Amino acid sequence: MLAWGYAAVAQTPAGPTTADLKVALDTLWVAIAAFLVFFMNAGFCMLETGFCRQKNAVNVLAKNLIVFALATLAFWAIGFGLMFGDGNDFIGLSGFFLNGADNSPAVGDAYKGVFGSLNWTGVPLEAKFLFQLVFAGTAATIVSGAVAERIKFVDFLIFSLLLVGIAYPITGHWIWGAGWLADIGFFDFAGSTVVHSVGGWAALMGAAFLGPRIGKYQGKQAVAIPGHNMSIATLGCLILWLGWFGFNPGSVMAADPKAITHIALTTNMAGAVGGIAATVTAWLYLKKPDLSMIINGVLAGLVGVTAACAYVSIPSSIIIGLVAGVIVVFSVTFFDRLGIDDPVGATSVHLLCGIWGTLAVGLFSVGPGGYPWMVDLAGKPVGPHGLFMGGGLSSLIPQLIGIVSVGGMTVLLSTIFWVALKSTLGIRVTPSEEIEGLDLSEHGMEAYHGFVKEAESGAFAEAAYYDKKS
Amino acid sequence: MLAWGYAAVAQTPAGPTTADLKVALDTLWVAIAAFLVFFMNAGFCMLETGFCRQKNAVNVLAKNLIVFALATLAFWAIGFGLMFGDGNDFIGLSGFFLNGADNSPAVGDAYKGVFGSLNWTGVPLEAKFLFQLVFAGTAATIVSGAVAERIKFVDFLIFSLLLVGIAYPITGHWIWGAGWLADIGFFDFAGSTVVHSVGGWAALMGAAFLGPRIGKYQGKQAVAIPGHNMSIATLGCLILWLGWFGFNPGSVMAADPKAITHIALTTNMAGAVGGIAATVTAWLYLKKPDLSMIINGVLAGLVGVTAACAYVSIPSSIIIGLVAGVIVVFSVTFFDRLGIDDPVGATSVHLLCGIWGTLAVGLFSVGPGGYPWMVDLAGKPVGPHGLFMGGGLSSLIPQLIGIVSVGGMTVLLSTIFWVALKSTLGIRVTPSEEIEGLDLSEHGMEAYHGFVKEAESGAFAEAAYYDKKS
Amino acid sequence: MLAWGYAAVAQTPAGPTTADLKVALDTLWVAIAAFLVFFMNAGFCMLETGFCRQKNAVNVLAKNLIVFALATLAFWAIGFGLMFGDGNDFIGLSGFFLNGADNSPAVGDAYKGVFGSLNWTGVPLEAKFLFQLVFAGTAATIVSGAVAERIKFVDFLIFSLLLVGIAYPITGHWIWGAGWLADIGFFDFAGSTVVHSVGGWAALMGAAFLGPRIGKYQGKQAVAIPGHNMSIATLGCLILWLGWFGFNPGSVMAADPKAITHIALTTNMAGAVGGIAATVTAWLYLKKPDLSMIINGVLAGLVGVTAACAYVSIPSSIIIGLVAGVIVVFSVTFFDRLGIDDPVGATSVHLLCGIWGTLAVGLFSVGPGGYPWMVDLAGKPVGPHGLFMGGGLSSLIPQLIGIVSVGGMTVLLSTIFWVALKSTLGIRVTPSEEIEGLDLSEHGMEAYHGFVKEAESGAFAEAAYYDKKS
Repeated sequence: MLAWGYAAVAQTPAGPTTADLKVALDTLWVAIAAFLVFFMNAGFCMLETGFCRQKNAVNVLAKNLIVFALATLAFWAIGFGLMFGDGNDFIGLSGFFLNGADNSPAVGDAYKGVFGSLNWTGVPLEAKFLFQLVFAGTAATIVSGAVAERIKFVDFLIFSLLLVGIAYPITGHWIWGAGWLADIGFFDFAGSTVVHSVGGWAALMGAAFLGPRIGKYQGKQAVAIPGHNMSIATLGCLILWLGWFGFNPGSVMAADPKAITHIALTTNMAGAVGGIAATVTAWLYLKKPDLSMIINGVLAGLVGVTAACAYVSIPSSIIIGLVAGVIVVFSVTFFDRLGIDDPVGATSVHLLCGIWGTLAVGLFSVGPGGYPWMVDLAGKPVGPHGLFMGGGLSSLIPQLIGIVSVGGMTVLLSTIFWVALKSTLGIRVTPSEEIEGLDLSEHGMEAYHGFVKEAESGAFAEAAYYDKKS
Repeated sequence: MLAWGYAAVAQTPAGPTTADLKVALDTLWVAIAAFLVFFMNAGFCMLETGFCRQKNAVNVLAKNLIVFALATLAFWAIGFGLMFGDGNDFIGLSGFFLNGADNSPAVGDAYKGVFGSLNWTGVPLEAKFLFQLVFAGTAATIVSGAVAERIKFVDFLIFSLLLVGIAYPITGHWIWGAGWLADIGFFDFAGSTVVHSVGGWAALMGAAFLGPRIGKYQGKQAVAIPGHNMSIATLGCLILWLGWFGFNPGSVMAADPKAITHIALTTNMAGAVGGIAATVTAWLYLKKPDLSMIINGVLAGLVGVTAACAYVSIPSSIIIGLVAGVIVVFSVTFFDRLGIDDPVGATSVHLLCGIWGTLAVGLFSVGPGGYPWMVDLAGKPVGPHGLFMGGGLSSLIPQLIGIVSVGGMTVLLSTIFWVALKSTLGIRVTPSEEIEGLDLSEHGMEAYHGFVKEAESGAFAEAAYYDKKS
Repeated sequence: MLAWGYAAVAQTPAGPTTADLKVALDTLWVAIAAFLVFFMNAGFCMLETGFCRQKNAVNVLAKNLIVFALATLAFWAIGFGLMFGDGNDFIGLSGFFLNGADNSPAVGDAYKGVFGSLNWTGVPLEAKFLFQLVFAGTAATIVSGAVAERIKFVDFLIFSLLLVGIAYPITGHWIWGAGWLADIGFFDFAGSTVVHSVGGWAALMGAAFLGPRIGKYQGKQAVAIPGHNMSIATLGCLILWLGWFGFNPGSVMAADPKAITHIALTTNMAGAVGGIAATVTAWLYLKKPDLSMIINGVLAGLVGVTAACAYVSIPSSIIIGLVAGVIVVFSVTFFDRLGIDDPVGATSVHLLCGIWGTLAVGLFSVGPGGYPWMVDLAGKPVGPHGLFMGGGLSSLIPQLIGIVSVGGMTVLLSTIFWVALKSTLGIRVTPSEEIEGLDLSEHGMEAYHGFVKEAESGAFAEAAYYDKKS
């Protein structure tokens, strides 16, 4: 007698069909890509923590760790249904808690179920959910960095639930859920708008409602507040770069060999050139090759190419990355002048370069059928056609509409969320807690016990002033 | 003439069969899952090091790096044969040094060879070994954390060899090696008992025989000894979470698309909810959202769902994670009260939640045929049926027997190993070495050269006392 | 109407052929392996940074981050064409900017295009480029460590462009590009010579032209300059170990199940045994189990087995790792005595163990047809046959010729590059910049803001001396 005690999981009997094998292969790729995107949580966690001060490190770490847990629950219960469930052009209205009819991996007309907007990918429903879940988690982690070092822990948790459960899925439905933006020809292959700009807008509103950190401005002049650990910040950047090989090529949601390797290359090119462009720009403009600019340049290039990665050539991806790398350097200064205090540059990287990347689809895309994979299930050539590739404004205008409408909606919903939190719980720690550091005040522990830290000069005097004022 | 200088590795000739492709696909998944599990070594390394003091960081790093190297040798030479080699119901007696007949990837009755207990997975023998090796390595790394900051380096090396070479494979044989526990209907899909509880019991005995660190107890009162680097500890947690996507879905040992994505989701749900539950529990019970509790809560959820991940629904996995996240918070306090000093909480996470997860199989499993993969090679429905799913005690009783018998055997063998080491080499460094830190005394170097560290107040006085006593 | 807004990427229509599936499966593996090798950038980054002093951490991080970006551009524009483009026995002369005819994934005689040397692998051209790109990036990162803590940032950038754009591809063409070394029967499966020795020679010349760091030698006596962060160094080692599972098994460039798992095992064995051997050797020779030796021992074993991993048995891989682990301990001392100051031991690990690994092919390889994959496309047995396996000197002599010729060429080209840079820009920072640390002088920032650091005793006095001398 054989023992099946290890696993009561039978193997497919010998002689699977090629269709079976294709489902297995596509699912394997979707799962592995999802794991890579999941790992971006570690990237964001290290990046954001490294860019903040050591007295807030535990807080940033805790936020980045718990946020994916919260996103998991919120997206499973509500978000996935709102985003991909059948409904109308504006919102999904079915499939909550992953319930509802579904005969995946059937595709196209053979698909019968409530997640019709995902009927183009021939993988099991749980693979679709897994992949979309890790994307949703990303949007919330983007916010974490911009609001760091002064937000109350509990407010961040609630905002993340609302963002992943409600705001992100609604605008996402418009684009990836077969909603009205998809109908008018808006294209965002892997999420420059769906994920990055949405996260960026929510981050911007958070940073604006919170106000700058104590000590960030002396009069109108922004003061640099250096991060405490560039080693883990750089590690975070490299983990994110790795994760992007799941984010972009994984969005094919099939193991199409030409598509996934082309997308991996356009992604890599843009990230590389973004890093180089930011280095050179910072060297010329700030007189030093600032490491935080190199890091943000790489990320800017990656965000920038995310929308267009499947539709553009390698030379175009280089231009996209180049522009993104230049944008990010000036953007950081720009937001500083606006009085928006974003400790990690999340708005520059994700919001501005997300917008740039979304526009780039309308500028550089090769047009329907330009690549073998730019066809629909019936084999008909589809896809965006950029201005510089002879497509006129046909693709650019939908992109502009998408940028404005998604931005407007996210600003609206974020504002509602932040204002509701501000007027109930209050969103900011007290000045003395902020001066002491959120690690001690919010979590009762420090990140680097046993090391001697420098006192922050002048901070306490300023705190006293704020405390009196408040 | 073609040049084959790069690689004398020929491609399969055009026109492979679907059976060939299935073997290749399954093997690719097993290999990638093994790499993810291998990477858990980095996760444990960062987690345990971060939770310890900086004066012992080199020692913890060195232990975690070398332990997988030792596990590789021990499991290749002896362990794999004892665990999976043909033998009797209690022990494997063939296949040492990976020798012996084997015609993998043949499966079921077509398999001819000495590793009959692994004949259900259609991958080459070396894929089977690779995957099991990285699992065996995990058991030893669990011990590392609990015995940290006072064990002699050489004793840990020898104990790891004995654990991976002898103890782990014997109890593993009972369950995954077609032994007596498999025969009575004990199920542990990916190793809540086989790996985590076994590592946890060995860790518990180690911590007990070593005694607490100097300064841990003031009278009966446990004193918190904070870790030195929460950044790398959090990174470690996220690497482990990533690794679990290899650990659990990889245990299918085939690229079954529905099985691997379902298991990835139950795994992720339990980890996420474990983290949330521990956060809330710690917030209520300890008054602060302690980051080390969030970390251990995630790991508790992941350990908890490991045994049942293939047999339970998503809602059940949420309950499993929830309970695990609550258990871990109280368990840390519980072991502190018992006088068991476990610097990283390994016994709480791996032992107690491993036991909980093993029980959960008997509570929540959907029953034979409940999922498409819960059938044997012949297509007959198999698998556990939990109490809450209408299965009565039929599955719960074998689980209880397994918990007790594996626990008993591991305690017995670990005790023999620890006592033998204690009475020959001695297992604990001297108090003055412990006060100075194991980095300088054992390795002659420090982990963070160039940084100014705080002196530990009162520690030296206490050391003097201990030194006199010893 | 279906909505294709998410992705205009069509799925392969139902019923793909087995040949289609094989291309997809092979490409998936090549892509995933490439991602793992890409992640080695994070490994090198953490390893090298951790082994250097905190005052130079930003500089080492910046170099390791930007170097892959530069490698991407240089290898795309020039390197890949020089290495794999059709040309003569000494250099490739086509395929620059990835242009030129190519009908991949066609293989063997069916292949028509300008990258004939890669016609043996049935994946799309962009998959071939992606995989080779991440390899090329590795060579440049090896240099980074050896020249750390005193090289000017701009010189490192230029040297990296020259190395990846010109030197690495030329010698690489001889071996993997169907050049003269391939013709005479030189074998280097995954790059002990092509990547590691080449990087090592370039590193050695850099370290020699730069001279030792201030304070490294007191008279003839080398002084240990401890690294600042062993936690990230150890993490780097484990990331590199993980990456090697892409580096070596990925070099099959096909999802051959037996080949990739065998290679994963020989790779792992050699790394594990290298770590153990270096630990024991250091314990006996230096009296302490030095963590940096354990780390370098693991890497030594991995480098050592890279050339032979597909051609040798598991016991042979153990011997290869054992010898590499012993070599690396003595080599570090050896280079110290020579007055070559290599802060991270890159020459010991990559150059010496790369040479050892290349020789090992000629000693331990099982001979043509010894493994199922050691055949050419037509099924004819091919591959090296080692001295100890009854092959006489037939394989050893080509290996020796390859070691000497590749070494000579790399020394020649590196010398030209370094001398040109030295005589134009100057390659070394001023002594006062070096004393202050490159982070402040080159980048205007510090890596660990907020922590109190120790002053380096005596360093300033010595700097004054050097400053006067210069």
